[in-house]
Amino acid sequence: MSPYFFWSITVSRFWSPFVKDLVPYVPGEQPKLDNLVKLNTNENPYGPSPKVIEAIRAQLDDSLRLYPAPNADDLKQAIAARYGVNTAQVFVGNGSDEVLAHLFNALFQHGKPVLMPDISYSFYPVYCGLYGIEAKPLPLDEDFRIRPEDYRGENGGIIFPNPNAPTGILLPLDGIEQILQANPDSVVVVDEAYIDFGGETAITLVDRYPNLLVTQTLSKSRSLAGLRVGLAVGHADLIEALERIKNSFNSYPLDRLAIAGAVAAFEDQAWFEECCNRVIDSRRALSESLAGLGFEVLPSAANFVMARHPQRDAAELAAGLRERRVIVRHFRQPRIDQHLRITVGTPEQNRQLLTALGELLKG
Amino acid sequence: MSPYFFWSITVSRFWSPFVKDLVPYVPGEQPKLDNLVKLNTNENPYGPSPKVIEAIRAQLDDSLRLYPAPNADDLKQAIAARYGVNTAQVFVGNGSDEVLAHLFNALFQHGKPVLMPDISYSFYPVYCGLYGIEAKPLPLDEDFRIRPEDYRGENGGIIFPNPNAPTGILLPLDGIEQILQANPDSVVVVDEAYIDFGGETAITLVDRYPNLLVTQTLSKSRSLAGLRVGLAVGHADLIEALERIKNSFNSYPLDRLAIAGAVAAFEDQAWFEECCNRVIDSRRALSESLAGLGFEVLPSAANFVMARHPQRDAAELAAGLRERRVIVRHFRQPRIDQHLRITVGTPEQNRQLLTALGELLKG
Repeated sequence: MSPYFFWSITVSRFWSPFVKDLVPYVPGEQPKLDNLVKLNTNENPYGPSPKVIEAIRAQLDDSLRLYPAPNADDLKQAIAARYGVNTAQVFVGNGSDEVLAHLFNALFQHGKPVLMPDISYSFYPVYCGLYGIEAKPLPLDEDFRIRPEDYRGENGGIIFPNPNAPTGILLPLDGIEQILQANPDSVVVVDEAYIDFGGETAITLVDRYPNLLVTQTLSKSRSLAGLRVGLAVGHADLIEALERIKNSFNSYPLDRLAIAGAVAAFEDQAWFEECCNRVIDSRRALSESLAGLGFEVLPSAANFVMARHPQRDAAELAAGLRERRVIVRHFRQPRIDQHLRITVGTPEQNRQLLTALGELLKG
Repeated sequence: MSPYFFWSITVSRFWSPFVKDLVPYVPGEQPKLDNLVKLNTNENPYGPSPKVIEAIRAQLDDSLRLYPAPNADDLKQAIAARYGVNTAQVFVGNGSDEVLAHLFNALFQHGKPVLMPDISYSFYPVYCGLYGIEAKPLPLDEDFRIRPEDYRGENGGIIFPNPNAPTGILLPLDGIEQILQANPDSVVVVDEAYIDFGGETAITLVDRYPNLLVTQTLSKSRSLAGLRVGLAVGHADLIEALERIKNSFNSYPLDRLAIAGAVAAFEDQAWFEECCNRVIDSRRALSESLAGLGFEVLPSAANFVMARHPQRDAAELAAGLRERRVIVRHFRQPRIDQHLRITVGTPEQNRQLLTALGELLKG
């Protein structure tokens, strides 16, 4: 059992006092068992570009004895070129989780609550706990949509995933602009972990909104969850705050292999588009098949679908799937505790999922 | 020019207020130029074990699409086996800099000053700035040695490198025990970045002192600065505090390749010992040659030497070396601004350094 479950009663006199109150994030399981159909953590079912593998292999030599470039300039240039911004508008980190942690610290500590959807990435309230920030969850509407008009009033910042997770639902850019315009004195963070599977990036808005920060990850659409690379794009003033934190925390968060692989990932646009399109096609087929089994499926723009069966308990379904070696994610959380979040897999993985679900629903 | 130099006048209303006061760490230069004799950031002159390269290559495939093991259990087991502790006594992070950042946050925030040598790793006061901790530097003696008897009185924690950096001077274990015994209510952190080049690790003391935390890095003796792996060993209560912070910050700080490479590095003890011994031999020869050129050389137990020439300005020597394509580190800091910190290179690199110095001293 992990040592950090919050029911642990250990409190040490050596700890900084706030540590005893931390409620850490619990990531989706990374089982060691083979032969599992692993549809629980929204990884890409397809591997990274062969050019990524090749670029890493080319760095795999005695040069590992040397420190990486502390500012990962090559990667910032690749990202800037991809999105038509300049490198002073780009920040990179050890996964978008590290980028998010730094931005909560650098941009959200104003003694006011940070606004976020009530159903959202469950790491956001954890960051609030780490930095002593009040989290103010705003309810999604009855269709699980973000209502832009709710995001106003005194706040220390605003953050939401787009498309939202774990709902998969996209907020169009005009909704984002509405939030940006209503909050000129707050930083608005759009967490685009899943944007490449069906949305339009808000990076196109950063030159018009100095309060907009967009984060992305290479873990999903670029098939590199194992490499830990995330990024943020926004006004250079926002990026400078992140750089100051980063350079007061860890000079070299990205290793030499991660930098090389990430650069190559941005350079192979064709591979990226092909993988995204395959996932999008599979999502459509999977959603239709789930509906055919009686599930209600939220309209997803991500690489997962959120679905509930009106007659079957979600926790029992998840347990039954696990017995059949298919793992999906179930959140014991109000409003969504009867949903399953299912990563879009390969057509073969999706078939195995659907077969298992079919058996369970007959049983 | 980097955006985070402290004379920058940019302050944004979007920043968390403390950000404007941060004075980030400035790492040693990582020049892109080839054909430099790079003796400025204490990298190992020898590459990592071929088994490290092989282990990373074996991971270099489609599995990069999957998240790493969030707790890096394989690596913790390799470290635990190496040092005869259990895995609950081991923490790992993205370089020892990240480990240090987390421990300042988790263990040093008690509203009292943290004690450290006045000449020491210059990231320590930066961490204090990041977390709002008062740093209390204690002067080294006239021979640049830590005086254990100075480390007492009310404090929120104690930290020092051993051997110290940038002096290279070792504090024997009985001096460390003296500090531990005088401070039973404070965490004492021994930062062993350079321990393998001539010291005895304090990890042997962790079972006797619940207030001892030992940090190490794979960047120096294990030739993996480019891979970003660091660790801490101590009582399970101290490790749990670090885990809580880590799991409130970033679930997966170590990527799949870094975990695989680091495990292999701990498994190839013969390569490790051979590299350390070669560096130790070269350090002895280099120290003698520098003395022969008239330098005063501090007795080093690290993979660098700290040396001053009684008749020559250190900044001018460093500039002259750079003109000859040899880079060393010079600190513009009281007491050591007439010293050069020179990484121990290969015998050939050291020869080039000595040749260049010989020319400069004749000039």
